Amino acid sequence: MKKFVYSFGNGVAEGNASMKAILGGKGAGLAEMTNLGIPVPPGFTISAEVCDYYYKHGKTYPAGLDEEIESALNKLEETTGKKLGDPQNPLLVSVRSGAAVSMPGMMDTVLNLGLNDESVEGLAEVTGNRRFAYDAYRRFIQMFGDVVLGIEHGKFEAELQKVKDEKGAKSDTELDENALKEVIERYKRLYEKEGKSFPQSPKKQLQMAIDAVFGSWNNPRAIKYREINKIAEGQLLGTAVNVVAMVFGNMGEDSGTGVGFTRNPSTGEKKYYGEFLFNAQGEDVVAGIRTPLPLDELDKRYPEIYKQLTDVFDKLERHYKDMQDTEFTVERGKLYLLQTRTGKRTALAAVKIAVDMVNEGLITKEEAVSRVTPEHIDQLLHKMIDPTVRVEPIAKGLPASPGAAAGKVVFDVNEAAQRGKNGEMVILVRPETTPEDIEGMAYSAGILTSRGGMTAHAAVVARGMGKPCIVGAESIKLDIEKRMFSVNNVVVKENDTITIDGSTGNVILGEVPMIEPGLSKEMKDLLSYADEIRKLGVRANANTPEEATRARNYGAEGIGLCRTERMFLKPDRLPVMQDMIIAETREERIAYLEKLRDVQKQDFYDILKAMDGLPVIIRLLDPPLHEFLPQRERLEREIEELKASGKDPDLLKKKEKQLKRSKELAEFNPMIGFRGCRVGIIYPEIYEMQVEAIMRAAVQLKEEGFDPKPKIMLPLIGHVNEMKILRERTVNKVEEIFKDTNVRIDYQVGTMVEVPRAALTADQIAQYADFFSYGTNDLTQTTFAYSRDDAEATFLPYYLRENILPHEPFITLDRDGVGKLVKIGVELGRKTNPRLEIGICGEHGGDPDSIEFCHQAGLDYVSCSPFRVPIARLAAAHAALKSKA
Amino acid sequence: MKKFVYSFGNGVAEGNASMKAILGGKGAGLAEMTNLGIPVPPGFTISAEVCDYYYKHGKTYPAGLDEEIESALNKLEETTGKKLGDPQNPLLVSVRSGAAVSMPGMMDTVLNLGLNDESVEGLAEVTGNRRFAYDAYRRFIQMFGDVVLGIEHGKFEAELQKVKDEKGAKSDTELDENALKEVIERYKRLYEKEGKSFPQSPKKQLQMAIDAVFGSWNNPRAIKYREINKIAEGQLLGTAVNVVAMVFGNMGEDSGTGVGFTRNPSTGEKKYYGEFLFNAQGEDVVAGIRTPLPLDELDKRYPEIYKQLTDVFDKLERHYKDMQDTEFTVERGKLYLLQTRTGKRTALAAVKIAVDMVNEGLITKEEAVSRVTPEHIDQLLHKMIDPTVRVEPIAKGLPASPGAAAGKVVFDVNEAAQRGKNGEMVILVRPETTPEDIEGMAYSAGILTSRGGMTAHAAVVARGMGKPCIVGAESIKLDIEKRMFSVNNVVVKENDTITIDGSTGNVILGEVPMIEPGLSKEMKDLLSYADEIRKLGVRANANTPEEATRARNYGAEGIGLCRTERMFLKPDRLPVMQDMIIAETREERIAYLEKLRDVQKQDFYDILKAMDGLPVIIRLLDPPLHEFLPQRERLEREIEELKASGKDPDLLKKKEKQLKRSKELAEFNPMIGFRGCRVGIIYPEIYEMQVEAIMRAAVQLKEEGFDPKPKIMLPLIGHVNEMKILRERTVNKVEEIFKDTNVRIDYQVGTMVEVPRAALTADQIAQYADFFSYGTNDLTQTTFAYSRDDAEATFLPYYLRENILPHEPFITLDRDGVGKLVKIGVELGRKTNPRLEIGICGEHGGDPDSIEFCHQAGLDYVSCSPFRVPIARLAAAHAALKSKA
Repeated sequence: MKKFVYSFGNGVAEGNASMKAILGGKGAGLAEMTNLGIPVPPGFTISAEVCDYYYKHGKTYPAGLDEEIESALNKLEETTGKKLGDPQNPLLVSVRSGAAVSMPGMMDTVLNLGLNDESVEGLAEVTGNRRFAYDAYRRFIQMFGDVVLGIEHGKFEAELQKVKDEKGAKSDTELDENALKEVIERYKRLYEKEGKSFPQSPKKQLQMAIDAVFGSWNNPRAIKYREINKIAEGQLLGTAVNVVAMVFGNMGEDSGTGVGFTRNPSTGEKKYYGEFLFNAQGEDVVAGIRTPLPLDELDKRYPEIYKQLTDVFDKLERHYKDMQDTEFTVERGKLYLLQTRTGKRTALAAVKIAVDMVNEGLITKEEAVSRVTPEHIDQLLHKMIDPTVRVEPIAKGLPASPGAAAGKVVFDVNEAAQRGKNGEMVILVRPETTPEDIEGMAYSAGILTSRGGMTAHAAVVARGMGKPCIVGAESIKLDIEKRMFSVNNVVVKENDTITIDGSTGNVILGEVPMIEPGLSKEMKDLLSYADEIRKLGVRANANTPEEATRARNYGAEGIGLCRTERMFLKPDRLPVMQDMIIAETREERIAYLEKLRDVQKQDFYDILKAMDGLPVIIRLLDPPLHEFLPQRERLEREIEELKASGKDPDLLKKKEKQLKRSKELAEFNPMIGFRGCRVGIIYPEIYEMQVEAIMRAAVQLKEEGFDPKPKIMLPLIGHVNEMKILRERTVNKVEEIFKDTNVRIDYQVGTMVEVPRAALTADQIAQYADFFSYGTNDLTQTTFAYSRDDAEATFLPYYLRENILPHEPFITLDRDGVGKLVKIGVELGRKTNPRLEIGICGEHGGDPDSIEFCHQAGLDYVSCSPFRVPIARLAAAHAALKSKA
Repeated sequence: MKKFVYSFGNGVAEGNASMKAILGGKGAGLAEMTNLGIPVPPGFTISAEVCDYYYKHGKTYPAGLDEEIESALNKLEETTGKKLGDPQNPLLVSVRSGAAVSMPGMMDTVLNLGLNDESVEGLAEVTGNRRFAYDAYRRFIQMFGDVVLGIEHGKFEAELQKVKDEKGAKSDTELDENALKEVIERYKRLYEKEGKSFPQSPKKQLQMAIDAVFGSWNNPRAIKYREINKIAEGQLLGTAVNVVAMVFGNMGEDSGTGVGFTRNPSTGEKKYYGEFLFNAQGEDVVAGIRTPLPLDELDKRYPEIYKQLTDVFDKLERHYKDMQDTEFTVERGKLYLLQTRTGKRTALAAVKIAVDMVNEGLITKEEAVSRVTPEHIDQLLHKMIDPTVRVEPIAKGLPASPGAAAGKVVFDVNEAAQRGKNGEMVILVRPETTPEDIEGMAYSAGILTSRGGMTAHAAVVARGMGKPCIVGAESIKLDIEKRMFSVNNVVVKENDTITIDGSTGNVILGEVPMIEPGLSKEMKDLLSYADEIRKLGVRANANTPEEATRARNYGAEGIGLCRTERMFLKPDRLPVMQDMIIAETREERIAYLEKLRDVQKQDFYDILKAMDGLPVIIRLLDPPLHEFLPQRERLEREIEELKASGKDPDLLKKKEKQLKRSKELAEFNPMIGFRGCRVGIIYPEIYEMQVEAIMRAAVQLKEEGFDPKPKIMLPLIGHVNEMKILRERTVNKVEEIFKDTNVRIDYQVGTMVEVPRAALTADQIAQYADFFSYGTNDLTQTTFAYSRDDAEATFLPYYLRENILPHEPFITLDRDGVGKLVKIGVELGRKTNPRLEIGICGEHGGDPDSIEFCHQAGLDYVSCSPFRVPIARLAAAHAALKSKA
């Protein structure tokens, strides 16, 4: 029979770390720590398989479960020497959720379970603290009502407030035993009013709490969390339920509770890091209601406990070979670990920890690489405040999630979500955040809270999202009603712009100049590990010498796509281009093209020089010619005006010609019309000019001692004859230049594969191509028959919202359709030409999931925007590691 | 060693009919006839492999060829008892081209070779006819100069004319021996003037003539002919050269020459058919200069020769099992067959002969089917003059090629070609045509000549092209210079419109009403043979009950594509459709759709009734919604006017709404935008309405005792989820109707495969599809990334002209690209759903080459326009026969 319940306690556990899938992260951690001899309160874990069963069988439980729970409970009672509901020495337990993937705060937790009207007296006896016992009972009734029975949290708070008002108490701690008893009475009456009853039977309490935890797996909050975090349905079995003997951090000043990291999760620094609240329960830390003390404070006051704790940290890190995030409680001077898990960390920390651990000999380079995600790299490449600019912060909070962001202040979470979706940059400002606020946080540029610590909800979530966040900015006086906050004498209203710096905690009025970060030493090290691992080359799409230089600095091994048409759009060239387009004879066209050739030659010279020694793929003119002419409406207006004024008849004539040509060139579906090599074939002089400009630039560089590696790319090839003709013309032109200059240069001629037919007939086309570069933007458009601009304005958002398409196909390469074409093209192309070099230069070249596909499909390289080059280097290494595994 | 020369004579030949590829049609025919004991003048054939060698080796000949020719010549001299160049009894030969595929008049021929200043005397002695001998010599010198040495034909004619003028002779026959000798002298001087010399050595003459024939294989005329007739380069080895002992039809009134068909090549009637000229050489018949007599005339005057000839005809037809086209000469009462080949025939004749021969037990049904081409069927489905209309012909000629055509009269061949290319309907009117005129003929709607017989150049070529043609309309007085002709008192000028009826020979002034022909008894028989053979089903694309009925009459086995959007365009429905499109709520839309539902139900009722018992695939709405709104410019104008007038504010409001919506719906690339199932998914009510209309029509029919077979087709599916959702919605709607009416009907739900991704993921889509129909029009657009409208207006004509594309891909399915996708889709689709029905409904469904592909790709059926159904039935049978072979 299947085992559903796993006990732990007294240094022995039935589970272990490898059973995360069924015990959840928390349960597996408790079992593992027990086995490691780390002090953990005893308890048992109900497997996530029960959750799976529960939902697959109409919310019922498997046979035998009750008996297993009963038996585990008996064992727990034996271990602790206490009994659930015992009026003398009652066992109290916590009941907590815990899935294989951490979903902080998303599911339900019940504490102090086992208290009732009788056992509360036992607790009072045993602890010798009647107030504590009744406070625990009060808290339990409130939590049980809220979490298990769905009575609104605020209603309990209101009752509590009434008693406080009656007693003239400012804080909860000022309520004495009697007052607390009155609160309990009021709570019980609230249950009645809500048509519920508080179960006095601890067994009943336990059963209901277990039901509630399993039930919370599919609450809307948890579903939303999984959606945002891309946890697919079926990826997890569900949540496990952990029933653990209570320990109390709120039993006086020799008690307390804290969270601790084995290294700094923000910076990655190798230094214990955490927060501690004396005389408090764990919930108080996580909720961020009281601002906790740094861990050093514990060292100062209880050095032996601190020592014990840091020994545990060291043991855990050696054992898990990764930075751990722990929760612990000190009950009357005794340390208990309540949880350990791999710590979430900032991107900065992820990179530093990974590289440090390699240097410490703890992990291999492969492990280091696999622990840093492309998103981490992405975050590190985010904006930061320009350090040369002096900023005057109006407030300072805790630097909870690094990176800087500027935006308009918004106080309402839903409004933040809405405006963020519309592309507005907003900074969400709240006293604190709760799990319900995730969506608003996800769509904000940054988050600022006036309360909470580094492990408060806002901080944890923002770090996970890689969003700049400041928490605990206590100098800020928030008035949510009036939609404003004030700090010292400054008043900030809704829609005022502020900048927050999540790396320093600084809040600045207005928008501050920011810069793109460079690569840190650790990042460079990590990427060099990635370079050792990856099989895919990484190039960049760059159209200017500046972009080329940036790409090279980021580690690009060449240019995978240099678009030449953008060169035509510069203001000194566009008029010449326009004259060329309206020219009526080949001779006229050639005259204009000669002017363009000279400027293009300089462009190519600069780019080839910046990429000296590395390949540069230059794509010949691609867009339809009408894109270079002025807008039709504008021309019509200008012509009207010129006619009316009677001035400048030559200009009028030219404008009229432009209009005529623009009408001639107008198309129903320009995306699949007269563009790319189709234009190149019919107007040979255009490509000939471009080829000449490229090769003359290369020749000059070679003469100057450089090593230019130009590769000429023909766009939109769909038939082998197009490739054949254009290759011939290109080679003829190049040979002419070689003859003329008496210099020869290695060069290649290839094509962009961006039309389905090119992939389908790649064996034919490869006869005349030295390389293929998949233009997956257009290939996605043609394979799906989606005009991107139109699709995004009409049906595509609906398709994504309704999951008709699992991914936005212009971001993540569609493996089933476009990917199949890519693979067909690779196979056919290499069959004809085994030395064919194959890469990708669509936007997908910078998307990790797509990069993984490119690795699997056997491509030689990916090419992406310069900023994404480091991401691509890492993602390519991940792909290589994954395919080895 | 390879054999290059094949002798025949005295009832024995080294070659035979099976060696057509190397002996050419003429050579193989001569050899075969020799073996059959048919009287053929002896000779030898130089293989086409020599021609192949000649062009592959810089116009040189293989070693050993000279010796083989020498030896064959010796044999020929032995057989005939004459010697080449013998001053006493000279052997004269003809030297003729002859490729494996007949290319009438395209290549060179030299007659009477072997004559020189000495042998002419021998010929005079032997024949006892000095005038004949010198006339033969004169002709030889002229032909040799023209054909072998390239001296302009007209220059010889001018010299001849001078002598005629001197002698006061009206025709050549009035010139006596001396006059002819003077002509010969003048001809020799002409040679000198042209810097050439006439070779007296017969061996030299022979060598030069052979060179000339091989050389003529690649003359521009022959190249053009092969291009027009789609004879690919490399398909033929080249031409063979036939050297045959001369026989003379011009040796008096007991001599003559003729061409004979074993059946009537125009009507197919089983009756000998031919023409004969007394005292003439073969060239005189073919050139059409003298109008010959029908074959019956020979029967009247020389019944025993006629009997001998028709016996040969019977023997040939029994032997070749096909209608033969022969050339023969009678020399002083003795019959010689000079050529036999399978006779070209009109479409009418092709069908009749094939069916008759099946009935005669000569050939099988398979053979019959394989002898009729899709083009034949196409021609028979061409227009004819409405027989109920009384026409008054202005002239009557010979009905040389059936079918009627109307067009503007054009007298210049180049102009006809030009205007025809531009899509104008022109009738080419000429005295006669020559091989140089092919292009002009190909682009004319019809051809009318004032001279020539049924086997004149114009007649033969026009029949081959399937173009209406009248020849020998001798009452017409042509004045090419003045660009007019007159007949009786009617004057017809250039650009006047005439109608010609190639089936009757009638020339009519103006344009006459024409009708589409029905299927003849023979055609029906032939198509029924085809139906027995073919594996592919044949359906029709039909949008109306009328089209459905026509399709059914033509043998369609169902409707493969019924486009529903055209129903929305009818004037009583369009305004409702427009209101639906500008509606702002789903409720409003539904209200308008309900109105449309009732009219659409009637449409479907009529179509399903017309196709009772046969499947009808109905495609739900496909085009983008903006196509149904009035043109933007028109709306703007109307709004201006309404505003100015101040009248009808409601209409103004509606127009403004339409304009607003039209702008909202405007797209950059509508072809790949918001249309098809994308619209259907986002506005579920549209497809639901259509499904309801279809199924309610079907239910009503079933209740009335009919057997409706509706199949619902979803357009533009590219992702399995689209298919899944729409199938679900469709099935739900249908079940609702079944429940409501208590009637159930067999129906299917499938998709049009017209997006590359659909084919690439066919395995996924087939989970939810009962059938696939390849929409190869759109699939060609997306696979090539060609917007058809734009491509045809810009680069496509250039691509076709320059052979960048071998075929117009919207007419002939591109096998390498689109075809590969089709095959991928078939394979994947059937893997998931082995019962998946797969067809094609693009225009390619009516194109024979594409139909062959569909057969090979394993499709279940093709669907095409009703008029092309008979063609598709035959082409499908051809494909089946070809794949068996």
